[in-house]
Amino acid sequence: MADNPSFVLRAVEDVAYEQRAIPEISGDEVLVEVKKTGICGSDVHYLVEGRIGDFIVKNPMVLGHESAGIISKVGPKVKYLKVGDRVAMEPGATCRSCEECKAGRYNLCTDIVFAATPPYDGTLGRYYRLPADLAYPLPDNVTLEDGAMMEPLSVGIHSVSNLGGFRANQSIAIFGCGPVGLLCMAVAKALGASRIIAVDIVSSRLEFAKEYAATDIYLPVAARDGESKIDYSRRNAENMKAQLGIDERGRRAIDLVIDASGAEVSIQTGLYIAKAGGTFVQVGMGNPNVTINIGLVTTKELVYKGSFRYGAGDYPLAIALVAQGKIDLKPLVTHRFTFDEAIAAFKATRAGKTEDGKGVIKAIISGPDFPADAA
Amino acid sequence: MADNPSFVLRAVEDVAYEQRAIPEISGDEVLVEVKKTGICGSDVHYLVEGRIGDFIVKNPMVLGHESAGIISKVGPKVKYLKVGDRVAMEPGATCRSCEECKAGRYNLCTDIVFAATPPYDGTLGRYYRLPADLAYPLPDNVTLEDGAMMEPLSVGIHSVSNLGGFRANQSIAIFGCGPVGLLCMAVAKALGASRIIAVDIVSSRLEFAKEYAATDIYLPVAARDGESKIDYSRRNAENMKAQLGIDERGRRAIDLVIDASGAEVSIQTGLYIAKAGGTFVQVGMGNPNVTINIGLVTTKELVYKGSFRYGAGDYPLAIALVAQGKIDLKPLVTHRFTFDEAIAAFKATRAGKTEDGKGVIKAIISGPDFPADAA
Amino acid sequence: MADNPSFVLRAVEDVAYEQRAIPEISGDEVLVEVKKTGICGSDVHYLVEGRIGDFIVKNPMVLGHESAGIISKVGPKVKYLKVGDRVAMEPGATCRSCEECKAGRYNLCTDIVFAATPPYDGTLGRYYRLPADLAYPLPDNVTLEDGAMMEPLSVGIHSVSNLGGFRANQSIAIFGCGPVGLLCMAVAKALGASRIIAVDIVSSRLEFAKEYAATDIYLPVAARDGESKIDYSRRNAENMKAQLGIDERGRRAIDLVIDASGAEVSIQTGLYIAKAGGTFVQVGMGNPNVTINIGLVTTKELVYKGSFRYGAGDYPLAIALVAQGKIDLKPLVTHRFTFDEAIAAFKATRAGKTEDGKGVIKAIISGPDFPADAA
Amino acid sequence: MADNPSFVLRAVEDVAYEQRAIPEISGDEVLVEVKKTGICGSDVHYLVEGRIGDFIVKNPMVLGHESAGIISKVGPKVKYLKVGDRVAMEPGATCRSCEECKAGRYNLCTDIVFAATPPYDGTLGRYYRLPADLAYPLPDNVTLEDGAMMEPLSVGIHSVSNLGGFRANQSIAIFGCGPVGLLCMAVAKALGASRIIAVDIVSSRLEFAKEYAATDIYLPVAARDGESKIDYSRRNAENMKAQLGIDERGRRAIDLVIDASGAEVSIQTGLYIAKAGGTFVQVGMGNPNVTINIGLVTTKELVYKGSFRYGAGDYPLAIALVAQGKIDLKPLVTHRFTFDEAIAAFKATRAGKTEDGKGVIKAIISGPDFPADAA
Ligand SMILES: NC(=O)c1ccc[n+]([C@@H]2O[C@H](COP(=O)([O-])OP(=O)(O)OC[C@H]3O[C@@H](n4cnc5c(N)ncnc54)[C@H](O)[C@@H]3O)[C@@H](O)[C@H]2O)c1
Ligand SMILES: NC(=O)c1ccc[n+]([C@@H]2O[C@H](COP(=O)([O-])OP(=O)(O)OC[C@H]3O[C@@H](n4cnc5c(N)ncnc54)[C@H](O)[C@@H]3O)[C@@H](O)[C@H]2O)c1
Ligand SMILES: NC(=O)c1ccc[n+]([C@@H]2O[C@H](COP(=O)([O-])OP(=O)(O)OC[C@H]3O[C@@H](n4cnc5c(N)ncnc54)[C@H](O)[C@@H]3O)[C@@H](O)[C@H]2O)c1
Ligand SMILES: NC(=O)c1ccc[n+]([C@@H]2O[C@H](COP(=O)([O-])OP(=O)(O)OC[C@H]3O[C@@H](n4cnc5c(N)ncnc54)[C@H](O)[C@@H]3O)[C@@H](O)[C@H]2O)c1
Ligand SMILES: [Zn+2]
Ligand SMILES: [Zn+2]
Ligand SMILES: [Zn+2]
Ligand SMILES: [Zn+2]
Repeated sequence: MADNPSFVLRAVEDVAYEQRAIPEISGDEVLVEVKKTGICGSDVHYLVEGRIGDFIVKNPMVLGHESAGIISKVGPKVKYLKVGDRVAMEPGATCRSCEECKAGRYNLCTDIVFAATPPYDGTLGRYYRLPADLAYPLPDNVTLEDGAMMEPLSVGIHSVSNLGGFRANQSIAIFGCGPVGLLCMAVAKALGASRIIAVDIVSSRLEFAKEYAATDIYLPVAARDGESKIDYSRRNAENMKAQLGIDERGRRAIDLVIDASGAEVSIQTGLYIAKAGGTFVQVGMGNPNVTINIGLVTTKELVYKGSFRYGAGDYPLAIALVAQGKIDLKPLVTHRFTFDEAIAAFKATRAGKTEDGKGVIKAIISGPDFPADAA
Repeated sequence: MADNPSFVLRAVEDVAYEQRAIPEISGDEVLVEVKKTGICGSDVHYLVEGRIGDFIVKNPMVLGHESAGIISKVGPKVKYLKVGDRVAMEPGATCRSCEECKAGRYNLCTDIVFAATPPYDGTLGRYYRLPADLAYPLPDNVTLEDGAMMEPLSVGIHSVSNLGGFRANQSIAIFGCGPVGLLCMAVAKALGASRIIAVDIVSSRLEFAKEYAATDIYLPVAARDGESKIDYSRRNAENMKAQLGIDERGRRAIDLVIDASGAEVSIQTGLYIAKAGGTFVQVGMGNPNVTINIGLVTTKELVYKGSFRYGAGDYPLAIALVAQGKIDLKPLVTHRFTFDEAIAAFKATRAGKTEDGKGVIKAIISGPDFPADAA
Repeated sequence: MADNPSFVLRAVEDVAYEQRAIPEISGDEVLVEVKKTGICGSDVHYLVEGRIGDFIVKNPMVLGHESAGIISKVGPKVKYLKVGDRVAMEPGATCRSCEECKAGRYNLCTDIVFAATPPYDGTLGRYYRLPADLAYPLPDNVTLEDGAMMEPLSVGIHSVSNLGGFRANQSIAIFGCGPVGLLCMAVAKALGASRIIAVDIVSSRLEFAKEYAATDIYLPVAARDGESKIDYSRRNAENMKAQLGIDERGRRAIDLVIDASGAEVSIQTGLYIAKAGGTFVQVGMGNPNVTINIGLVTTKELVYKGSFRYGAGDYPLAIALVAQGKIDLKPLVTHRFTFDEAIAAFKATRAGKTEDGKGVIKAIISGPDFPADAA
Repeated sequence: MADNPSFVLRAVEDVAYEQRAIPEISGDEVLVEVKKTGICGSDVHYLVEGRIGDFIVKNPMVLGHESAGIISKVGPKVKYLKVGDRVAMEPGATCRSCEECKAGRYNLCTDIVFAATPPYDGTLGRYYRLPADLAYPLPDNVTLEDGAMMEPLSVGIHSVSNLGGFRANQSIAIFGCGPVGLLCMAVAKALGASRIIAVDIVSSRLEFAKEYAATDIYLPVAARDGESKIDYSRRNAENMKAQLGIDERGRRAIDLVIDASGAEVSIQTGLYIAKAGGTFVQVGMGNPNVTINIGLVTTKELVYKGSFRYGAGDYPLAIALVAQGKIDLKPLVTHRFTFDEAIAAFKATRAGKTEDGKGVIKAIISGPDFPADAA
């Protein structure tokens, strides 16, 4: 095919299909025919708000960054890939020469070219150009749809395994049962968690989590009139501890807390329930200004770490755990759309459900001319 | 001497000298004749408020925990100490059998018996009983006064070296130039800091810091009417970056930030100026509820760690750095009192200066019958 | 019962049952009625040689250190245990006050009192005295026999999880398929190994390993006449790499190598097959003088670590993995003996098999008056 | 200048000056006019043996890899360098896309193009081409000669600071007082070592070490007739311990041992004197087959690590410590030669001294037309 139809965000609430030039590739790059792309909260955010923090959409931008596809062209220096290979696409090309890149923390590279983060185009077109080492071949038992899910799964891997240092027989509490929270649970389960506590304010999401990977679920108590958030959270944490039998030390303590909700009260509650000497990884991004009880941080010597995307080794581990059957991504794909139905896919993700009332966890858009129901 | 006069907090704002029984020691304990005791903000806090967080003074309690003295008795199982040895006293005896103790994080032991933390008596008496391994012999060139300073110095060691992982050629910014902040600077300097930025709202403290160990000082800008703290802090951080030439990455970035002020705006500002991938150690304890920008924590993948007292290896390193002349504690001891003048010592510490206008950094009270000016 | 029959090593090749005084316990100790004890190579070694390295049996010594039992008495300060509790016994009581103990590396304590390491008596009697925190309650689904196996399992936990830092999806090669090697495999499997290569020179042990936990097995090639060990090992490693598809880097490389054979050629071969940047944990102890190729260590930047017994957190993790069903200890107990049959048990372990030809992996001796077939 | 005279190794013991094409640079590369080059043992080794391990000189190869120079051309994408900048040259360009490169361990990259490691040309010509991020600007107070020394200094940084994790107040023993050993001492001193023990069999080198950075020196005892190396080393270690007051634990124990001699007996002795729980970093490369006592490795839980070249952050730290005056490189440069005298420089390095009897530590060859005595 010589054309490159692309799904472009032109301005807030204004999307359209446009033809884009097929990218030229250099010696160590590949051209990927994109076959599956998941919609992420950030894609919706750009559509609705036109910005995320300091990243502002000023020019038309192709959306999408959770993708997998098939290699359609390889640069002359590419050694380990060939046309026809099915690959998961890591969507951030880094400079490889700054201090952070060389020290193995390339997600902190300031010169990163990240798909669908302005001003860079995303993957919702027919073709996407990628450095060869960011295209990871999929084992036979891993579908292209699974491949598209490797991006959010890598967020979970990075947070739980890499930053959280999570190990067999540890316990974890995860606030937020959206795709990211659920994938963190999947990772914790694959790594041998003794206990996985899922927290959400939406009961259907809790049920989903319980079905999917959680050993325990917790629905936060209702806030009282006039109660400050921090007072609420302390009370909520006390209730959660009592209800689930959580201690601050020992066998029933929570080794790792993950916030994947971005909600202030989740972060506050999480610090209360974390084990003395434990770790808290912040993945969720909501209203940035959050009031925390630093007395908990000091007296329990907590380690509170921010998690940003993913880095070295995260994609390979994600793919391996899926290939080994330790993580099952299929239950998370609740909705599938053709390329032409991209607007409907965004609408569903935004609403959190489709007209038939079915809740959306992850909606996947197929590449041009690729059937929605081909995995 | 057979008596054991002690300086006792009987109730809020009510202190008095009382006779206490001389402690019996068990096989692996020593009895120390306390010779020098520094006054800590927490001693003053108990005097004024009767509590710190959940620790409430319900019964009369001897004050003091920053002490050094001379061994006056050793238990039959004590191997490495003898009567007459000059020792720094680590004031927290732990259970040694809980999970935390055995894992090498004994400062998190819940059964710790910590001097002058209710309900346990402190060191401001003639005698104090200590497990032998918590009495550290002082090298000849280290005075008893230095010995008393090992307690706050160990807080600095724990925060900067142990938790902060600070290394030669790194840069550090320290908020708060009280004894703890200054000692953090001393540690950073001893470890080979390339840059030590001291921050305080009191210019005389900044001058002291500059004289003592800082390479740069920073006086925060004034807040504007109606400006929220977080807005103020962002502006303050921008100003600080511009004024001192601080970047978020590279050679001019700040590897480690320490808060030793407990002030909300310090913590907020510190997160703004910390390097991407950097570390922030929270030592200061003020109003616990602090609003932070978690967007900074996530996108810069900061590690925000609480620091609580000190643990394995901190006292030995403190003593060694002083003995090697890499840390000079003498400038910090601004005031000296006899045992009988304890009330005056507390008054001075509380006021922050004596009537002659001299600012207090650290006031030291000698043991009974020991001259204030003997070091 | 008031008597305390004990199985005593009086001199090389000279064992006998003797009555011993029932140990007095102190405030934080418990008295355990020993119910199950596994025989370890070191017990046999003391029997046959009278020494292991610098540890020499100079006075009669009760043998045994891999034990579990039932609490028969608790000291007045014991909080979490009561008479009748079934417990695994960690057989090394440490000083708790040396630098190593306090830093969380208590297995390096020089003052450790380790069961059946001269001059200290072991557990092969009716009663054994233990600090309460070293008696770990067994969950209901864990048998006393499993409990006795926690000691060698903790060696595996310490080596693979703690020192080896082994994580899900990593690959491991283990030289030696005796109890220790097999338990290392069990740990690797429980932690989510992608590949577990078992190596032994005895094919029946390889078959056992394959059945038990290994994904691949390797029988070393035969040595050639006059070939030096190091030349042999290089050739053996080349063969092993080719046969099993092992690379020095990437997906097919070996992240962690464990030697649990003590054989020089295993160590040599292991260094050849370890991944660049990989780790090698030395557990096996044979002839101490071993020729290694340090060129491999430098150019591959290998980390070669010694493993000694086990430390903080190892017993709890061992028990948890068994309780969760991630490790099955039962297949390893090939032989069971009553207390009166202790000599037969030693004979079988020494021979490596019983007269019926059945190979011994682990022989367990019951406590006095406790049936051999009660688990 | 349009010509590019180069000092070429044509075959074993056969060197000559040849004209080489001036390298073309790509977008992110720079062309450096090489001004100072130190001679390394490996250069001499290639000259004399034609190989080091598996690296064999098959075609003529320009020698030299310890260099500094002045930027003479910059590629269009180069941001932070300009013509005329004085730079230290890191002589290994890596692939930046393999697993090791991305994980921050680029010295393990198999595709590294390392100067004067066959088949790649070295730096002993007028011009050398380098990726821009490997050319480190020298602060004003750091000379070009210092710049050339950054290469071996980075070996010391990598070994002592990075792999050895050496920290203030730790003690170190370094076997071998050649340039590498001496630079390891310099690093240990700069990092705040409490004790630096230098070992060498040549007393003049020991004296040099003592003068330069060591706090203690040790001359190994003479071997006895018929004594095995390992027996000798045990005896040597006992002597060393007694002579210098070294223990296996505590304050007088050796935290870090470095072998920078490559001698079997050094490695053996080093393992005996290392602290329980200590680290041993292997830098020296001699006869690869070395007999070690693995009983020491296991019972002391030693960590024995190989060190290979240097990696992320090592050059910057090296330059910073020199710029800060914490490391003085000048005493190590004992001999200086013009470009035309390269053969004499090799001769001197090979002999270990010049005809005037002066011992060579480091001989530096200037670039073409650059005076030998210009620093
Ligand atoms: N750090 C990173 O690199 C990174 C990457 C991807 C996503 N994220 C962030 O992770 C978060 C999760 O992403 P997602 O796609 O799963 O989002 P999502 O919106 O689908 O899921 C968030 C979930 O949190 C729940 N929630 C809201 N308030 C809650 C509360 N008070 N307590 C408990 N649960 C609550 C919601 O009901 C929802 O189920 C988002 O904030 C997103 O911005 C961060
Ligand atoms: N974590 C621990 O284990 C531990 C141990 C000891 C002390 N502390 C805490 O450390 C802190 C410092 O102790 P200290 O004895 O040095 O106290 P201090 O009161 O003498 O010093 C605090 C300093 O912070 C300065 N400050 C106040 N507001 C500031 C602001 N907005 N910006 C910059 N500086 C500001 C003050 O002027 C003062 O100089 C206290 O909060 C104390 O409670 C913690
Ligand atoms: N480090 C510690 O704390 C610790 C603790 C317990 C045991 N150990 C040591 O661990 C080792 C294993 O203990 P075990 O009880 O399983 O012993 P074991 O004797 O039952 O098992 C050793 C196995 O190694 C095999 N083997 C021998 N030579 C071999 C070779 N060249 N290649 C491959 N395999 C070979 C043997 O056939 C045997 O199956 C012993 O050396 C023991 O001393 C160490
Ligand atoms: N790992 C790496 O990346 C790397 C890089 C550079 C150099 N090296 C190696 O480091 C070593 C040192 O390099 P150099 O340039 O300083 O070499 P050098 O030959 O100048 O110095 C070696 C020193 O070791 C001394 N020595 C020899 N036998 C000894 C013994 N038994 N005990 C104590 N000292 C003894 C010699 O007298 C000499 O002073 C060499 O083996 C070299 O190959 C390794
Ligand atoms: Zn970068
Ligand atoms: Zn404790
Ligand atoms: Zn101990
Ligand atoms: Zn590479």
